[in-house]
Amino acid sequence: MTEPTFDPGFSTAEMSRVFSPRGHVAGILRYEAALAGALADVGLIEPDVAREVEARCLGLEVDAPDILARGWAAGSPLLPLIEEIRAGLSPDAASAVHRGATSQDAIDTALMLQAGVGLDALRAGLMACGAKLRDLAMAHVATPTMARTLLQPAGPMSFGARLALWLEPLVRHIDELEEARDNLALQLGGLAGDAAAHGMEAAAIATATAARLGLVAPPTSWHGDRSRTRAVVAAVAATCSSVDKVAGDIVLLAGFGEVTAGSGRSSSMPDKRNPIDAVRAVAAAQVCAAGAAVVLGARPPELERAAGGWQAEWLAFPLVFHTAGAAVEALDRSLGVLEVDQERMLEALGGVDHAAAIVAGERVVAAVTAAFSAVEERG
Amino acid sequence: MTEPTFDPGFSTAEMSRVFSPRGHVAGILRYEAALAGALADVGLIEPDVAREVEARCLGLEVDAPDILARGWAAGSPLLPLIEEIRAGLSPDAASAVHRGATSQDAIDTALMLQAGVGLDALRAGLMACGAKLRDLAMAHVATPTMARTLLQPAGPMSFGARLALWLEPLVRHIDELEEARDNLALQLGGLAGDAAAHGMEAAAIATATAARLGLVAPPTSWHGDRSRTRAVVAAVAATCSSVDKVAGDIVLLAGFGEVTAGSGRSSSMPDKRNPIDAVRAVAAAQVCAAGAAVVLGARPPELERAAGGWQAEWLAFPLVFHTAGAAVEALDRSLGVLEVDQERMLEALGGVDHAAAIVAGERVVAAVTAAFSAVEERG
Amino acid sequence: MTEPTFDPGFSTAEMSRVFSPRGHVAGILRYEAALAGALADVGLIEPDVAREVEARCLGLEVDAPDILARGWAAGSPLLPLIEEIRAGLSPDAASAVHRGATSQDAIDTALMLQAGVGLDALRAGLMACGAKLRDLAMAHVATPTMARTLLQPAGPMSFGARLALWLEPLVRHIDELEEARDNLALQLGGLAGDAAAHGMEAAAIATATAARLGLVAPPTSWHGDRSRTRAVVAAVAATCSSVDKVAGDIVLLAGFGEVTAGSGRSSSMPDKRNPIDAVRAVAAAQVCAAGAAVVLGARPPELERAAGGWQAEWLAFPLVFHTAGAAVEALDRSLGVLEVDQERMLEALGGVDHAAAIVAGERVVAAVTAAFSAVEERG
Amino acid sequence: MTEPTFDPGFSTAEMSRVFSPRGHVAGILRYEAALAGALADVGLIEPDVAREVEARCLGLEVDAPDILARGWAAGSPLLPLIEEIRAGLSPDAASAVHRGATSQDAIDTALMLQAGVGLDALRAGLMACGAKLRDLAMAHVATPTMARTLLQPAGPMSFGARLALWLEPLVRHIDELEEARDNLALQLGGLAGDAAAHGMEAAAIATATAARLGLVAPPTSWHGDRSRTRAVVAAVAATCSSVDKVAGDIVLLAGFGEVTAGSGRSSSMPDKRNPIDAVRAVAAAQVCAAGAAVVLGARPPELERAAGGWQAEWLAFPLVFHTAGAAVEALDRSLGVLEVDQERMLEALGGVDHAAAIVAGERVVAAVTAAFSAVEERG
Repeated sequence: MTEPTFDPGFSTAEMSRVFSPRGHVAGILRYEAALAGALADVGLIEPDVAREVEARCLGLEVDAPDILARGWAAGSPLLPLIEEIRAGLSPDAASAVHRGATSQDAIDTALMLQAGVGLDALRAGLMACGAKLRDLAMAHVATPTMARTLLQPAGPMSFGARLALWLEPLVRHIDELEEARDNLALQLGGLAGDAAAHGMEAAAIATATAARLGLVAPPTSWHGDRSRTRAVVAAVAATCSSVDKVAGDIVLLAGFGEVTAGSGRSSSMPDKRNPIDAVRAVAAAQVCAAGAAVVLGARPPELERAAGGWQAEWLAFPLVFHTAGAAVEALDRSLGVLEVDQERMLEALGGVDHAAAIVAGERVVAAVTAAFSAVEERG
Repeated sequence: MTEPTFDPGFSTAEMSRVFSPRGHVAGILRYEAALAGALADVGLIEPDVAREVEARCLGLEVDAPDILARGWAAGSPLLPLIEEIRAGLSPDAASAVHRGATSQDAIDTALMLQAGVGLDALRAGLMACGAKLRDLAMAHVATPTMARTLLQPAGPMSFGARLALWLEPLVRHIDELEEARDNLALQLGGLAGDAAAHGMEAAAIATATAARLGLVAPPTSWHGDRSRTRAVVAAVAATCSSVDKVAGDIVLLAGFGEVTAGSGRSSSMPDKRNPIDAVRAVAAAQVCAAGAAVVLGARPPELERAAGGWQAEWLAFPLVFHTAGAAVEALDRSLGVLEVDQERMLEALGGVDHAAAIVAGERVVAAVTAAFSAVEERG
Repeated sequence: MTEPTFDPGFSTAEMSRVFSPRGHVAGILRYEAALAGALADVGLIEPDVAREVEARCLGLEVDAPDILARGWAAGSPLLPLIEEIRAGLSPDAASAVHRGATSQDAIDTALMLQAGVGLDALRAGLMACGAKLRDLAMAHVATPTMARTLLQPAGPMSFGARLALWLEPLVRHIDELEEARDNLALQLGGLAGDAAAHGMEAAAIATATAARLGLVAPPTSWHGDRSRTRAVVAAVAATCSSVDKVAGDIVLLAGFGEVTAGSGRSSSMPDKRNPIDAVRAVAAAQVCAAGAAVVLGARPPELERAAGGWQAEWLAFPLVFHTAGAAVEALDRSLGVLEVDQERMLEALGGVDHAAAIVAGERVVAAVTAAFSAVEERG
Repeated sequence: MTEPTFDPGFSTAEMSRVFSPRGHVAGILRYEAALAGALADVGLIEPDVAREVEARCLGLEVDAPDILARGWAAGSPLLPLIEEIRAGLSPDAASAVHRGATSQDAIDTALMLQAGVGLDALRAGLMACGAKLRDLAMAHVATPTMARTLLQPAGPMSFGARLALWLEPLVRHIDELEEARDNLALQLGGLAGDAAAHGMEAAAIATATAARLGLVAPPTSWHGDRSRTRAVVAAVAATCSSVDKVAGDIVLLAGFGEVTAGSGRSSSMPDKRNPIDAVRAVAAAQVCAAGAAVVLGARPPELERAAGGWQAEWLAFPLVFHTAGAAVEALDRSLGVLEVDQERMLEALGGVDHAAAIVAGERVVAAVTAAFSAVEERG
């Protein structure tokens, strides 16, 4: 298994790095290191024991697909990795590893750490798309074009206004992705989800572990509650749906001959100029929606830990982020080569007076670019 | 067509009232009244003209299914209703009706008004469920039970802690439903979505209309951007997924003989005690998820107005709210009759020491009930 | 509850009649009548007892929504209806009603009987669409038009060939709907699904009951196996997806100005000619797909009878058939008013030689119309 | 990108080989070889030209992910590969490569070839599961157990009957998978889907190409009609849903302590015996359903070739087959280690008379094992 099983059009380099077996194992190792640190923070183990665990975890090189496969074979996804960590340690340090935790604690938290990187990458991608749309909207505020409702001619509008209407939801998605990242929570509940093994120190250990990982410390563990993973996936899926909208509209406008967006060729008709990146964005966004549906439509967990629905997230999360990354990247490329045929747009209007539409367009463009600038300034 | 086509187990009286043809037409009439009022607010029409429109709209009795059916037949869902409103008015008032608006403005806004009532009803239902769970959790904090992961025995836990873990996401959903309601936005964009027909007064008219309806005035119209309807549906679907979780766990625990929840009989075995309301909650929640998927997985709108995806929302919104209402109501009933068999729970533990689990349970119950009390106090 | 909760655009008169509480109760009554007849057929009850049950069932008038609602309240969907049937009978006849059956037997079989009517209605609707497409394809075999791939110009093709390519999958769907109807199976398993209460006569009773209802007698009951309901829904959903394709293409071609399909007006722009029935077909087909997903994506039944997933079918089946009926009807209307602008089509070709395309079109149209004729002749 | 992005628990060695970039490119090369052979069959090119193309295609070694990635970058997924094939050929042979075909012809056909291998692998897996279920059913026909409806006790049944009820739908799925494989169709339509470039020889070329590939030659191309890919995916998804059912029931029965199925350990509780392969089957089946939904719920293709929906299939097909393969394999493993605790089963019955249930069980087991034997004999 040395080949990626994803078609290269459905991921990005960064998502391939983060949402891979290697990226997942790296997250688990960070978790185990942080937990040991937290145990020391609250005085349950010695600082040098914690440091020994941290050094082991953060320096460990493993064959990630192999160790995960052995986990499935062993019937416990984490056990081979925990044994590998403990193998090189002093008895005290070995006994501190994973203390009071259960496999779902480490796996869920690793997914949240991966999601944090993924959400930031998507946000950066949306910012790039947003900047291009903003510039295009300002450049085309006085470009009249035919509005189309149910794909039928519906009178004149400013092409800049159309671009601003594309941009407006992206501005909100940028905020939503940030909010989703800021809400990413630690998982730490032990076998029954009540952190009983951590006794009176349970809350303090959770707070310290979360702080070390840059995550929220929630009031309880959430093994059997997937509303938190749902929220992450829902934010990504909402973003992708809006990406799909803009990309789909680019394909339609290319169909009407009013824009071009790339020079995709055909194997049988070399002169075609297919809007290939817009098509790729649409395709990736659709698969993202299906990946999201694994989580959004999952059967709920049975009692303290799901027998199937949770494990399905292990594939759904990578799928969602790979394809979302590809969709945003493809939209960005498509916007980067968007060319507008103003004559064709005028022709479609057939001489209708468009003065009022341009005035309205100025208002719409101003309102949306202001909102985008506010997001851009916050970084 | 005098019979409901929904099975009575999949709705509630309130949702049937609000999410019906009659409820939808009522929302449209409120919209047209508010728009006329706003036109007067900004000085574009006389106050008494606005009052004439308002009186007409708010007093109008129509055969709602018939007028919507005629709309489909006419090829414009709103036209027969607009003509009906205008029929009884002075020329000035007739010309003020629906001025600068398009059918999607009225229909989307009416859906948002209906959604507002629906979200409040769901929130009230969740509060009732939450109060029952809180009381049960406090009553059972010292009741030991067997935790189950992958449905396998996983050691002792406090039954109160399990109930608190059920409650914790509901507390957040109550907030999310409130947030969703507070974000419900006016739709007012006219034919091309740029409110060009309202000229320089466009922003003022939108602000005044939104204020009269208790809605947010967004920076632009959102005919071709469904992220706002997605957000409403996503909040309801997230709620239903957690309802599904709790109800599903009740069914499982009834299967283990550790609780009973109702006295559902069998047509072939009269002594059975089926947890029928929990089953109904699970069934309704699954259909809710499918209704939500119409919106969450919809193909994006084509340019300025969707040719199909938007119209699908007209059925999806009622479906989502009917079934969500039924799911929450059924969970509430199920919790209201939940009986705990403490001896059976003890038996499953087989004498394992559970002292640490009860201590942990006290912590978990305290954390979650505090969070619920905070929500309850805010109302 | 005297109003339909479905928007009138999302159903047809026939589907509203069949997939309503009244239609469902009628199916259950037919089932109970047939079962009594079968018990007599194998000699377990006297013929006149069976006739008494049949007369009672087939003459019974009940308030269907009310009796189903009381079923939910009683915790057994069927119990109030069974009691109502028994109320007017002699003791012998009363004891013969529902003998050896369980509620799921009657409910599933009633759904299959409803599905039989629904599948036939859809097939008839597809035949009508197919005939229109065949006639149009033959009329336009020599009409050149621009092919479009990724919505980009892709050289000349025969418009008749495009119509034939739309028709080809419909021909197969007509067969698939017929196959689905021919596979509709009786449900008869009693409480545990093994028909134990019917003893040695179990197979004979099932065969006789199925024969009386025009259904297949399967080798076993299928309470916990939903592959049979899946198959029904999958056939309908596949049909709707192809309806969606044709309707969506009509909307696109109307957007390119190459066809018109109806005179849908706009509340703000009276001169528009919206392809409203094609849009309605697309909308209804999308909701149909979501209803199908309730069944296709359902969590599997738990052991001998599902706790939620099965009950969700009670709403999913009506939803699927209502919307499928609406989609097919709307496509049929749309095809009935389709007008082709041959000049506009020629203009888009810009003088490209299309002789080879017309020759190819003749071949494609001939192949598909032959396939349709074969289906049409079989009836 | 040297790591698989799929978690090892969600695929099998065979599916990883077939549904990989390498497996896809191999299918395309087979297609191009067969097309050249067919052109010679009908006399359009010389036999030795065809042999040159075939030798080149079947001997070509390429970096599959790289050449597909270059395809996306070039805006035509196939172009770099076609150029690579032509690079080593005489001018006559180079001009014969891909003659009259378009990229979708090669890609769709390659997917069908991959699907053929995948469907056979799934069928073999189901046969293995079926044989285990048949043997278990026969061994346990006289083992009484408690039936459970809505997870509540519902009286005695034969455990062998339960196993036979699990097996019955699998028998039909084996047939459905075979039917799906037998219906796999060639794609060959050229740019506009009418095979115009092949002129009068179009039907003969299609027949010859299909024959060389072991595929059906359909009456027309199906670029814009996805009912054929839907049918493949629907058959796999139906299979997975039944696998999910059996695996889910094993998890439930393990929860009731009536069976064990594997020795999955816990990282925090070493004595647990988790039914890990059953859990894996459930998880993989859920993801399979989501992958299927990409195809089953896809927006329909726009006119002659889809702008996004088709491209999404390139990821959906691998996803569906990887996870289906994993689900079937995991169920097979789970059945291979299934152990039955007859005493526990008897205990749950509490002395209820089960004689009639065993008699009924013998009937059910006989009916289903006969059906399975018939399938097994056909091979």
